[in-house]
Amino acid sequence: VERLKVIFHVSDRSRWNYALTSVTNFLLDAGAENVEAEVLANGPAVTAYTGEKTELVARMEDLNRSGVKFLACRNALRAHGIAEEAVPHFVTVVPAGITVLATRQRDGYAYIKP
Amino acid sequence: VERLKVIFHVSDRSRWNYALTSVTNFLLDAGAENVEAEVLANGPAVTAYTGEKTELVARMEDLNRSGVKFLACRNALRAHGIAEEAVPHFVTVVPAGITVLATRQRDGYAYIKP
Amino acid sequence: VERLKVIFHVSDRSRWNYALTSVTNFLLDAGAENVEAEVLANGPAVTAYTGEKTELVARMEDLNRSGVKFLACRNALRAHGIAEEAVPHFVTVVPAGITVLATRQRDGYAYIKP
Repeated sequence: VERLKVIFHVSDRSRWNYALTSVTNFLLDAGAENVEAEVLANGPAVTAYTGEKTELVARMEDLNRSGVKFLACRNALRAHGIAEEAVPHFVTVVPAGITVLATRQRDGYAYIKP
Repeated sequence: VERLKVIFHVSDRSRWNYALTSVTNFLLDAGAENVEAEVLANGPAVTAYTGEKTELVARMEDLNRSGVKFLACRNALRAHGIAEEAVPHFVTVVPAGITVLATRQRDGYAYIKP
Repeated sequence: VERLKVIFHVSDRSRWNYALTSVTNFLLDAGAENVEAEVLANGPAVTAYTGEKTELVARMEDLNRSGVKFLACRNALRAHGIAEEAVPHFVTVVPAGITVLATRQRDGYAYIKP
């Protein structure tokens, strides 16, 4: 059986808590081994990707250990003055977040905006 | 011809009015008999699913009579202290809303976040 | 290679700036010649489609020259008292925005809510 593929799109910083709860509940319900889950942040949401281990970053890291990929839009990092070296080690920087959201959907991922 | 399939995702309580207007306009335009429409509520939006017949619940019930399915995320009901028996009779409780949003899209439903 | 197809959904007026930046970054990254991009406005977002050449309208017109299509939901125009003749010449009015969002996704477009 093919894994259930989902890309979550987070653009507002205030939505991170709700977004991470959504991802967590999804893994608990469907089983981490049965899903491919990615979280793409662009817009002001990228400001949560700080080097400091905030509670949000700790929750992301836990989810990453369960296989969830975290992505940051380079355009958004630049717009918010965040150096790429400042984002947590488990975050992958992509050239443009929208292109990733488009290609993932073309490749069969569901899109969810928490 | 296959019916046009759509799942609407409502997570903020303040978006219900706009969401129900969107669903209504969709049925009027495409024809209720030509669509499969579902509304999945999670997050604080589930607090609109009360036993009281509010104006929102009355509009949902009208849409349900036209074939629109209403779903509630069990995790969200619990998080907001709502007993499953308290939701309107036409609402189906699902274990995890995100899993439904993912599987519907895998099965050809369009995703719309009003 | 098939073009990467995306429909952007804008419903809040306050999201236009971010939405247009998203579309612009997408064209720069993927190449305008490699994409089919449409922007569907419904809800209060249609109030940005005014005859006056605001900064937003000027940015839309630039994107339109690069091939981006702009659509307005007729129901939303009516609800906000906007005459169809008042919208910019490059905007196409559609009977119901939700039907367009549904058919585009059925036809392989990715959905993005900026």
